[in-house]
Amino acid sequence: MHLFCLFCGKTYDEPVQRCECGEPVEFEPFSGEPYIGKTVWERFYDFWPVEPELELSLGEGDTPLVRSKLGNELGIRLYLKNETVNPTWSFKDRGTFLAMSHALKAGYKTVGTVSTGNMAASVSAYASRFGLKAKILVSQSASDEKLKAVSVYGGEVIRILGDYGRLYFESLAMGEKLGVYFINSDNPFRVEGYKGIAFEIAEEISPDYVLIPTSSGGLFRGIAKGFIELQESGLIDDLPTLIAVQAEGCSPICRAFREGKARIERFENPKTIAKAIANPYPPSGNAVLKLLREFGWKCVSVSDEEILEAQKRLAGEGLFVQPASATGIAALKKLELPEGARVVSILTGSGLKTLGDVQAGEIRECPLGRLESCLKGA
Amino acid sequence: MHLFCLFCGKTYDEPVQRCECGEPVEFEPFSGEPYIGKTVWERFYDFWPVEPELELSLGEGDTPLVRSKLGNELGIRLYLKNETVNPTWSFKDRGTFLAMSHALKAGYKTVGTVSTGNMAASVSAYASRFGLKAKILVSQSASDEKLKAVSVYGGEVIRILGDYGRLYFESLAMGEKLGVYFINSDNPFRVEGYKGIAFEIAEEISPDYVLIPTSSGGLFRGIAKGFIELQESGLIDDLPTLIAVQAEGCSPICRAFREGKARIERFENPKTIAKAIANPYPPSGNAVLKLLREFGWKCVSVSDEEILEAQKRLAGEGLFVQPASATGIAALKKLELPEGARVVSILTGSGLKTLGDVQAGEIRECPLGRLESCLKGA
Repeated sequence: MHLFCLFCGKTYDEPVQRCECGEPVEFEPFSGEPYIGKTVWERFYDFWPVEPELELSLGEGDTPLVRSKLGNELGIRLYLKNETVNPTWSFKDRGTFLAMSHALKAGYKTVGTVSTGNMAASVSAYASRFGLKAKILVSQSASDEKLKAVSVYGGEVIRILGDYGRLYFESLAMGEKLGVYFINSDNPFRVEGYKGIAFEIAEEISPDYVLIPTSSGGLFRGIAKGFIELQESGLIDDLPTLIAVQAEGCSPICRAFREGKARIERFENPKTIAKAIANPYPPSGNAVLKLLREFGWKCVSVSDEEILEAQKRLAGEGLFVQPASATGIAALKKLELPEGARVVSILTGSGLKTLGDVQAGEIRECPLGRLESCLKGA
Repeated sequence: MHLFCLFCGKTYDEPVQRCECGEPVEFEPFSGEPYIGKTVWERFYDFWPVEPELELSLGEGDTPLVRSKLGNELGIRLYLKNETVNPTWSFKDRGTFLAMSHALKAGYKTVGTVSTGNMAASVSAYASRFGLKAKILVSQSASDEKLKAVSVYGGEVIRILGDYGRLYFESLAMGEKLGVYFINSDNPFRVEGYKGIAFEIAEEISPDYVLIPTSSGGLFRGIAKGFIELQESGLIDDLPTLIAVQAEGCSPICRAFREGKARIERFENPKTIAKAIANPYPPSGNAVLKLLREFGWKCVSVSDEEILEAQKRLAGEGLFVQPASATGIAALKKLELPEGARVVSILTGSGLKTLGDVQAGEIRECPLGRLESCLKGA
């Protein structure tokens, strides 16, 4: 098990969370063969940095790749990778499960995370499942109602008063000191878990483009690493073009990419309906920038209006996602994709988690006695 | 394609919704072989009354069977069939998909359903997916907030003023007259879709008992028919003992079963937190009663207190379900199951759908500067 820094190149034999230079560390590329097996954890057994605790799996991963008609008007073949059907209804479960497998084997009794949304629920759920205590550090603004979906699993919810943005780094430092294993957004084991999305896509099709809602950068890095490892292992020929998608109101990575900067800067006054991807200073931002440049990939940002329109169009195909998950579809119009291109968009989390953001549809009233005419109408 | 009445035995070659005698009709038993295939629809191709429209599938079915520790204190081997990871986050999608496949092939342009909850969302979603119009008849008491998760998919939501209990039958009659295909709770195609739950369980283990939250009776009938067909086809040796579980506050089937009656009677003043299984006059109630007696199966009812306790215990294993879905676990203590028995409990729908029913957990506050002591505490 070797970790190396994506920037200074320093290597580590211990499972550190970040490099001394401040940038994320990552496991060296895996290579191997696929196996017969029921789950993605079994089929890609050679590709994980730790033995997955299969007995404690909740069935994360192995999500459907759904054919979409939304690409027809653009002349592309569009597929939706539906991560909303994970055990806590977001992609986070893949990474949480793998990182929790590490935490358990490493002997930790307590894990933590810094999140108010999908990741908070995921870590709370898996900690209970694994028999570990959880400290879930949430922001001051998180509503009690929203936090029900976190505390219900039994994790201890702690509302932090102060600069929530600093907490990512402070939690890692304090966790190390106290023996609490923090599974934050780009924890190296977590990132490895997301590779399964690339593996499963590649089992079904050879995509030309993959659209990835991007916030901390952990999901983007994981999917990228997955495809790269498949290519290095001789299992696929070409890498797809990965496209990081951000909300215009909080797009530090796209901005730095556009401006040719090597490092991201904090995005002041972030404001977007896509709360799940509104990290103003993404901890893997520089690492994503580097990948985009190295492989000639792209970054696209979309407006709230475009996001809500895309959310509605996805629902019209039977898939109700949170606003952040609709950004990939919102980005389609802004890209000039070649005729017939195979395109996958990642749907990251369930719309049930952000029901408050949805406008109520029109509801007609109908007295039972007038049922016939009510059914005839429209 | 032959349908027959479960009570009077009359057979039909046309896809009628119910028998003239008022009882449900059901497809004659299928038999066949399993095939190699990715989805349950492909693997059990011989067992469906209509060719599933696989191109329009949203990936319903093929849900995880999760090993649970909750059975340990009772000395049983407990498994949880997690139906909350279906495309609209309940088991309803299996039946909706199959019934919608029929509606499309039969040339219907409009479908309908009578539901305020899981089935309403499911039919609304799949109708959009299939390019059909949907008329979703909801009860007067359904909140606008809750109905967002239905209307978001584009189905037309119609609030019925009047006796909602009569609507099941009136909708079938009116639908037939107007060419609107109603996919209600025990539509014969819908029931067939639920067989997949039995098929998938049997692919993994041979259960001794299966606990099924029971309301209209459609789910119970589907799972029963699935296991029976497997046995008739020589694919399993023994049928499991199926256990219908109801909420004490609305348990018309258990009451009739206990009292030795051949037919259910309307359960007056139903009152339970398990809203998803609170049908006071279940349209397949008599059919479930008949199955229970014929095979020596059981009916168990549980209190709201027991349901909430079970919901909490499931969350402590990482699975957050709606109250109705926790009834199977609540029933465990009331059954005297033999040591080592293999028991499956069906988790029917996501807890996110009933977040209002969950008590908020305790939330601590912690100033950032005191992070260390906050993380140390308990």
